[in-house]
Amino acid sequence: MNDSPMGGWNTQTQKEILQMKKIAIGIDIGGTNSAIGVVDADGNVLAKGGISTPSHGDVDRYVKDLAEAVREMLKSVMQINANFEVIGIGIGAPNGNYYSGTIEYAPNLSFKGVVHLVELLKKQFPEYAHIALTNDANAAAIGEMIYGGAKGMKNFVMYTLGTGVGSGVVVNGDLVYGHDGFAGECGHTTLIPDGRLCGCGAKGHLEAYCSAPGMKRTAFELLAKYNAIDSQLASKTFQNMESKDIYDAAVKGDKVALEVFELTGKYLGQGIADTVHHLSPEAIFLFGGPTAAGDFIFKPTIASMEAHLLPIFKNKVKVLPSKLSAGDAAIVGASALVWKELDK
Amino acid sequence: MNDSPMGGWNTQTQKEILQMKKIAIGIDIGGTNSAIGVVDADGNVLAKGGISTPSHGDVDRYVKDLAEAVREMLKSVMQINANFEVIGIGIGAPNGNYYSGTIEYAPNLSFKGVVHLVELLKKQFPEYAHIALTNDANAAAIGEMIYGGAKGMKNFVMYTLGTGVGSGVVVNGDLVYGHDGFAGECGHTTLIPDGRLCGCGAKGHLEAYCSAPGMKRTAFELLAKYNAIDSQLASKTFQNMESKDIYDAAVKGDKVALEVFELTGKYLGQGIADTVHHLSPEAIFLFGGPTAAGDFIFKPTIASMEAHLLPIFKNKVKVLPSKLSAGDAAIVGASALVWKELDK
Repeated sequence: MNDSPMGGWNTQTQKEILQMKKIAIGIDIGGTNSAIGVVDADGNVLAKGGISTPSHGDVDRYVKDLAEAVREMLKSVMQINANFEVIGIGIGAPNGNYYSGTIEYAPNLSFKGVVHLVELLKKQFPEYAHIALTNDANAAAIGEMIYGGAKGMKNFVMYTLGTGVGSGVVVNGDLVYGHDGFAGECGHTTLIPDGRLCGCGAKGHLEAYCSAPGMKRTAFELLAKYNAIDSQLASKTFQNMESKDIYDAAVKGDKVALEVFELTGKYLGQGIADTVHHLSPEAIFLFGGPTAAGDFIFKPTIASMEAHLLPIFKNKVKVLPSKLSAGDAAIVGASALVWKELDK
Repeated sequence: MNDSPMGGWNTQTQKEILQMKKIAIGIDIGGTNSAIGVVDADGNVLAKGGISTPSHGDVDRYVKDLAEAVREMLKSVMQINANFEVIGIGIGAPNGNYYSGTIEYAPNLSFKGVVHLVELLKKQFPEYAHIALTNDANAAAIGEMIYGGAKGMKNFVMYTLGTGVGSGVVVNGDLVYGHDGFAGECGHTTLIPDGRLCGCGAKGHLEAYCSAPGMKRTAFELLAKYNAIDSQLASKTFQNMESKDIYDAAVKGDKVALEVFELTGKYLGQGIADTVHHLSPEAIFLFGGPTAAGDFIFKPTIASMEAHLLPIFKNKVKVLPSKLSAGDAAIVGASALVWKELDK
């Protein structure tokens, strides 16, 4: 049946199409660096690199450099397998607005005001149907859903604990962006009225207690409270203490460090209970440095969440560590945004 | 063209079909009474009545009585217009689970454990394609969306302030039920760690501050704090003070009463800011007795919400009074559940 000249050609083309492997580009824009990765549909990072995020606000130049770096990376990836098909670019950035494709008044970036990043990248890559942007925590939540522990879950929330506390909310299988694209800022729920000053200018927000710097603030409060001159944390300055130091001290049984984890979990569990009361999720995922402390942080968090919940929610909601690998989560999450667009 | 015998008959039938007017039945189950209403697509209540909710837990008997009352009411409505077409029954009930059609462990109802109300009603009314149940606050939110001030809004949250505080969350035009059907319990977010005892057994929940009894508790705290023997509220017992008393005193300039509203707004605004950070809604609707106080409650609520918000949310989110009429909101909201089902 395949003996016409066209038959052979068709078969060859079909074979090539079958071999085409879809890949997505993930970009994570931070205050210092912009990480770029090429990611396949299973979340494997085929190549990664990056450029500096400018310390001065020349957006046009930055986008040109970024596009150049992406093209270079794709060139090297195509040398491995010429049949890769790029399906688009996903970007995670602070204050990234999914609806408008803009970065808006991001405090830690040099770009002032509103930057139309998706529009600028579309000019560089008119051949890609899907170029989408959201904030970094939302990207991580989509990453968890596409590649991680939330596969198959329709309702979950991701908390990312780091320098700040971000979150991404998934309802009925879709990320919630809300009315103007900024939903999912659970790090700024109020835990303590008139409490600690938050980086955003308000008081008592979760981020001021449960971020890595928040844990350090708790450690310093406890050192002062107990006059704990013998604590392993007593030799650190406020400038230099890191959450890793608190973990190391806790492992060695340091009482102050252990109480920091107890309190951080108590605070975090209170905030997570608020989230559960709003959304009745199947699970809460925790991501970021402090979660590496395992039971030190998970046990008090779960106990506190349960204590704050209505009876109808008790012993139902899972609190789980993210399954995204720490090093690649940001670019993998950003790339996941593209796979999610394909579903639509 | 219409001179065949069938022609006339067809025209007649078409006319009747054109005259058919769709109506829905709304049932609001409370601890004492179950209100029943027949509601048209514009939210007009064509008839209303009710039966006692049993003080002892005989569910089968209750459902039989309820069905009988519905049939009687429909009979009287059909006498007005025989061309009404009943499209279904919507029910609002405490701890009503939309997914399973059950009422689960409702503390103020005599029914113990899990009551399969939708299943029982379907046996009574096999002819109706749509019989659906949710909790009363969710029903009110759907009512606001179908008939009220949230028409055309895709993302909003409704707070219902009464004996308790309920809420209904709408994302992308759909009510959020969450993983197991109980989403939207914003009345149980924690405002004050280790604060007032809440009816649910936990501490510091919003409901313990912003419900009508919560306002009374605030009034008694302030009477004690200021030793306010001359306050108009000083003559009321703890058993008898109502939120209306506080409003009446505030109108007359009573300082304690005015401060009750200030504080209630401060508490409520803190909780609403948490909701905004989760969901980025277009608007928050407030429903229930205390909202009749107008600016007394809205002004401090909005001021407090704004003070707790991230800059990207400031001056964006509307806080609005519900447009549902107080007397009929519960049955109208319950009936709206049926119209919402029709959309699916």
